[in-house]
Amino acid sequence: MVGIGQTRFAKVLEGRTELDMACEAVVNALDDAGIDPSEVDGTSSYTLETTEEFDLARTVGFGDLTFFSRIGYGGGAGCATIAHAAMAIATGQANVVVCWRSRKRGGGRRPWAGQRPIVSGHWQWSRPFGLARPVDEIAMLTRRYMHEYGATRDHLANVALAARRHANRNPHAVMADREMTRDQYMGARWISEPLCLFDSCLETDGAAAVAVTSAERAADTPHRPAYIHAAAQGMHPQHQTMTNFFCDDPLRGPAWSAASLLWRQAEVGPADVDVAQLYDAFSPLILLSLEGYGFCERGEGGPFTDGGAIEVGGRLPVNTSGAGMSEVYLHGFNLINEGVRQIRGTSTSQVEGAEVSLVTSGEGVPTSAALFVGK
Amino acid sequence: MVGIGQTRFAKVLEGRTELDMACEAVVNALDDAGIDPSEVDGTSSYTLETTEEFDLARTVGFGDLTFFSRIGYGGGAGCATIAHAAMAIATGQANVVVCWRSRKRGGGRRPWAGQRPIVSGHWQWSRPFGLARPVDEIAMLTRRYMHEYGATRDHLANVALAARRHANRNPHAVMADREMTRDQYMGARWISEPLCLFDSCLETDGAAAVAVTSAERAADTPHRPAYIHAAAQGMHPQHQTMTNFFCDDPLRGPAWSAASLLWRQAEVGPADVDVAQLYDAFSPLILLSLEGYGFCERGEGGPFTDGGAIEVGGRLPVNTSGAGMSEVYLHGFNLINEGVRQIRGTSTSQVEGAEVSLVTSGEGVPTSAALFVGK
Repeated sequence: MVGIGQTRFAKVLEGRTELDMACEAVVNALDDAGIDPSEVDGTSSYTLETTEEFDLARTVGFGDLTFFSRIGYGGGAGCATIAHAAMAIATGQANVVVCWRSRKRGGGRRPWAGQRPIVSGHWQWSRPFGLARPVDEIAMLTRRYMHEYGATRDHLANVALAARRHANRNPHAVMADREMTRDQYMGARWISEPLCLFDSCLETDGAAAVAVTSAERAADTPHRPAYIHAAAQGMHPQHQTMTNFFCDDPLRGPAWSAASLLWRQAEVGPADVDVAQLYDAFSPLILLSLEGYGFCERGEGGPFTDGGAIEVGGRLPVNTSGAGMSEVYLHGFNLINEGVRQIRGTSTSQVEGAEVSLVTSGEGVPTSAALFVGK
Repeated sequence: MVGIGQTRFAKVLEGRTELDMACEAVVNALDDAGIDPSEVDGTSSYTLETTEEFDLARTVGFGDLTFFSRIGYGGGAGCATIAHAAMAIATGQANVVVCWRSRKRGGGRRPWAGQRPIVSGHWQWSRPFGLARPVDEIAMLTRRYMHEYGATRDHLANVALAARRHANRNPHAVMADREMTRDQYMGARWISEPLCLFDSCLETDGAAAVAVTSAERAADTPHRPAYIHAAAQGMHPQHQTMTNFFCDDPLRGPAWSAASLLWRQAEVGPADVDVAQLYDAFSPLILLSLEGYGFCERGEGGPFTDGGAIEVGGRLPVNTSGAGMSEVYLHGFNLINEGVRQIRGTSTSQVEGAEVSLVTSGEGVPTSAALFVGK
């Protein structure tokens, strides 16, 4: 990974479209890599990305594209775009692949506002019973998690506060200037009990992009490359989109499937990870991800976060840019850029000497993860 | 490619859904391969496929999925699914990948029936001027092609008649029992001049699927494997979905981009191809594809089809199952199964001793192609 780019992040970016933000982020990533847009011959993005490959190609000035892919399941797709880019390059299907996500949601209506809820298919088993929004589905999983393992709101607060403190050091974060205390967290209104306002990601505008090329080509680029050491997608056999309430073990999510391949491919293990960006649409996903990716035993994700363990200086700094909860919510793509910055040594919450950087994507939904290394 | 499967093909399959047809085709492909569904750990399909990966996985009984991809642009995605499967297996992201397309359209309304046409985005430059349906867009390209190169309706008839004659030998083809003469072709009603009824693909119900695995694992399967020798996607830098009317050279479509990588990767060339399945949503796409993939010079696609050249016994048998125009229209996935059968030696219009089998996907839209070989 030789180039990272982004737009300005804000609650609302007036006058911008998802297409023009995507173009800006991609142009910035290629500029950062010192690679001319005409060298781009591959792309990968989310199925929910509205920017068409051909619009991006024509507008930015790509060459002939010989590889393009999309990955479904919302925020689960993030690291899969990087996995696909690496596969395409390793097999000669492309030489320079750009991955991106552009999202304009801060000023808009929620997708479900004013619509009749979808109650067909799998949704018929949950929507009529009040699980109308993603936060409601994750709230029910969280309630079960707390019941099973004794996790508390203080554990969720650890996650939200770590992200906010990291955002306070990152001038690009939407919440850069907004400090938060544990009392503020505890006093915040419920969104879907036991999840309060500060357990959810932001709704924001912005885009981010990455340029990926071969290790050989990377040697001729200006920044220290972040090598894709391993990457995996994950979906378990009983999956039903976010509403995994009917499987044998609802608290063992897709992370476990992705982690299995990820660590099998890697020459390092969880104990070697210097810094992690863990997908945070909602704070409890961090606890599940800590378990799924093997940083602790099942049920120990909560206590793992105590004592500043997931803040800079702790044993596993997590979400060092502020991530989806305090930097910007781009279905996790900003976590990828931060994972690269940690290898470059340029994060505003830099882990000294970081050489192994984990990034994960949406947990709950079918997911993906990648390990970046410095050499 | 070690397994191929399909449902029954018909204009209308009463009581079937796209999900259950997808499951049947996938089960049949795995059964054909002698591979248990629990071994499946990867999938690839079209973005327009309505069957969700998790529904297929849960219903058929896959294992953990560690790779899944989608490709956009309608029928352009067909061979890209095979390319992605091969990439995933070559790089260790998956061991057994299923690719599929299920489509129930024969009894349904056209997607655009009763809807206001989309006139935003790129469509605003063509729809208000009468290019309402895909056939209208291709008709305008065809008119230009005829004007530039002197191609005639007889050349288009060569394509339609070759497909029909092949279908008449294929008991699974929707048009198995319906013979067609050149006079019938010439007397058919216009759909969008210069394209008549028989220049368009069928609207049908059915599904098809393929199982892909490593060459090592393939050695332990019952049928002769069709090896994926090369595969490529293609989109050129000035692309605008199907309405490529504003680029420098509207008759040089995405096939040229895919062909460039395909032949660069291959140890064979166009002259070595024994049999070709060329995507045929509309008959003129065959002429463009013959040129794009290098079987003749530009403008010579029409004359290339004369004298039975694209029928069995001719110099390049094309669409030997009857393809989209006379077997079934699954956005080209049935062409992939037929490409495999030609390598197995089991086509009903078998090319004797076929060892190099080309399959292409939607031309006009961003596309893909693959070369299957017997050893």
